[in-house]
Amino acid sequence: MVASQVTDSSFANIPGPVHGGDWQGAVERYGWQPDEIFDFSANINPLGVPESVLEVLQSNLKAVERYPDPACRQLKKALATYLELEPEMIIAANGAVELIYLFCQTYKPRRVLVVEPTFGEYRHAARVCGAEVVDIKLKPAAGFVLDLVCWQKKLAGVELAFLCNPNNPTGQLLEADLLQALVATCQKQGVFLLIDESFLDFVPGWRQITCAPEAVNGKGVFIIRSLTKIFALPGLRLGFGIASPEIIRVLENRRQPWSVNILAQMAGVAALADDNYLKASRELIRQEKEYLYQELASLKGLNPFYPEVNYILTDISASGWTAPRLANALAREKILIRDCSSFVGLGPGFIRTAVRGRQANEKLLTALQFYL
Amino acid sequence: MVASQVTDSSFANIPGPVHGGDWQGAVERYGWQPDEIFDFSANINPLGVPESVLEVLQSNLKAVERYPDPACRQLKKALATYLELEPEMIIAANGAVELIYLFCQTYKPRRVLVVEPTFGEYRHAARVCGAEVVDIKLKPAAGFVLDLVCWQKKLAGVELAFLCNPNNPTGQLLEADLLQALVATCQKQGVFLLIDESFLDFVPGWRQITCAPEAVNGKGVFIIRSLTKIFALPGLRLGFGIASPEIIRVLENRRQPWSVNILAQMAGVAALADDNYLKASRELIRQEKEYLYQELASLKGLNPFYPEVNYILTDISASGWTAPRLANALAREKILIRDCSSFVGLGPGFIRTAVRGRQANEKLLTALQFYL
Repeated sequence: MVASQVTDSSFANIPGPVHGGDWQGAVERYGWQPDEIFDFSANINPLGVPESVLEVLQSNLKAVERYPDPACRQLKKALATYLELEPEMIIAANGAVELIYLFCQTYKPRRVLVVEPTFGEYRHAARVCGAEVVDIKLKPAAGFVLDLVCWQKKLAGVELAFLCNPNNPTGQLLEADLLQALVATCQKQGVFLLIDESFLDFVPGWRQITCAPEAVNGKGVFIIRSLTKIFALPGLRLGFGIASPEIIRVLENRRQPWSVNILAQMAGVAALADDNYLKASRELIRQEKEYLYQELASLKGLNPFYPEVNYILTDISASGWTAPRLANALAREKILIRDCSSFVGLGPGFIRTAVRGRQANEKLLTALQFYL
Repeated sequence: MVASQVTDSSFANIPGPVHGGDWQGAVERYGWQPDEIFDFSANINPLGVPESVLEVLQSNLKAVERYPDPACRQLKKALATYLELEPEMIIAANGAVELIYLFCQTYKPRRVLVVEPTFGEYRHAARVCGAEVVDIKLKPAAGFVLDLVCWQKKLAGVELAFLCNPNNPTGQLLEADLLQALVATCQKQGVFLLIDESFLDFVPGWRQITCAPEAVNGKGVFIIRSLTKIFALPGLRLGFGIASPEIIRVLENRRQPWSVNILAQMAGVAALADDNYLKASRELIRQEKEYLYQELASLKGLNPFYPEVNYILTDISASGWTAPRLANALAREKILIRDCSSFVGLGPGFIRTAVRGRQANEKLLTALQFYL
């Protein structure tokens, strides 16, 4: 009811998640220029935005004078080719996060399951849409491994379950057999499953890992993915979802028009055709994540978790530092890391750092060595 | 309930509104290049995107590698200066349309009042959020004038009322005394009022017309505005809302993060500082709307409504043409107009045409002369 709610200030008190990538905060606090900052707090492809994309943007800036195609026809065609699917199975979005909200707003699940620690927007989107959130808190000491029996039990009464694969911030992939079992359990128990594959593009062999086949075949799965991480376009906003054509039609019908801007649509088409960039990115990440992982592991008091992706979660509790203090110390060196205190199930003993290019990674390691 | 809804295809059957600006449709149907098209179907500033904005975009393209500031701090400061308000009274958005949906999703009004004919997204956003929509259908023969007594009666049981000022597609401003009376009635009857001022920047003296003072003083009014029309940036997406800080806090809390992309934020800051562009735009529109209005009025069978803004609604029913047929005929000349058949309360007897530069306006008039 509008009239009472708008004057009820307690209505606002659903705490929202904290995120990395707050370069603007650092600019305002320390007076730096954005490009002076070494941002390890957001997990973006260190190769930077593809040249092919920059060229398309550069030569099409005047296109901002036209409305974006609300149906994203060209972009959906390009995505369909990349994914080996039909355009009717795809919804484009203003970042993958738009789809978390759109899905919850559309289907209004009453009870939702989240596996923590994970991306904070699942919980928040579910709560602002009126859902009760139940969770499974994975244990660092057990390597954050999800137990199938626990999953089955927690699904009771749940209408929507979230999985993040690879998971943010732990950097881990679900083991293939386990993932199949998780999906099968949801089907059996009539629970809809939203799988966030936003970082899957960084994983070689992702086509064997994605649950897109389950999604398009109407097995109660909705996949969301991001183009902003792999193509270093977070500022432009671009994500997409994969589901059966019936679900895509419903979601398209319930959304605001023009949510994907015209430059993001053009950038997506150009980027998806850039095979060389994708190959080079996966090769760079493969090398640099090994390097950064090994070097972090060799530092006193740091216990990184082995990453499948372009970021590394590290337990720093044996170092004598807390994450907020370490983040502050590094910030003075123009290095931003992700203090993981705000993740449910973690705490001040954890940091997350993106995998960047060799020079930046060395700068981070040198600074860590100095402080630890 | 998720499981049943996702397999229920009737769940999708809330008809969505039709919009102008479908250049992509014309490209695919006729094989044209987008910049060959004379688009009178979208109401965009004919001066085109300001040079000052193009320069900022050109020299900051690499900024797409950073996340947008989710709090839009620089943009809100620029807006606050432009509006002579505080940043806490402003919410930035991915186009004004995002705020129609966000407001309805947040406050979930059960019964909504829409004054037709008007922008189709009010009705659709309200319906997909579960509201019942009641309407007032203004009569073309009565000059689309809204009657206060009718308004008062229709407000019974309503939780949220929409007004569009100036109204799209009629191009009319509400008379100042009437507007005050409409606001006062809503306050008295406990009805929240959302006023869409997306085209108000085209009106000289808009600072005397806006209901922003009522909005920020907590009088149950939420204003939405657009920067995409006046600054010719529809492709980038940029709008904002004005309300009391309490309402802004709630809306900010309920939304997805990063909805306003980084280039839109930068473009907004640059555009709002461009006084010369704003002056030149209002002067051009003042001249060209008079010209186009007079010329349309002189054509056989056309009865345009006098516009306060950068678009003109015309009754073509005396011409022997219907809007769909005329739109089709003109489309073959690479001219897009807005067939108003889809507006509630209008029908195939109405078209809407943007006011553009003299050369484009002449092209439209010549083509109309040929067909009529």
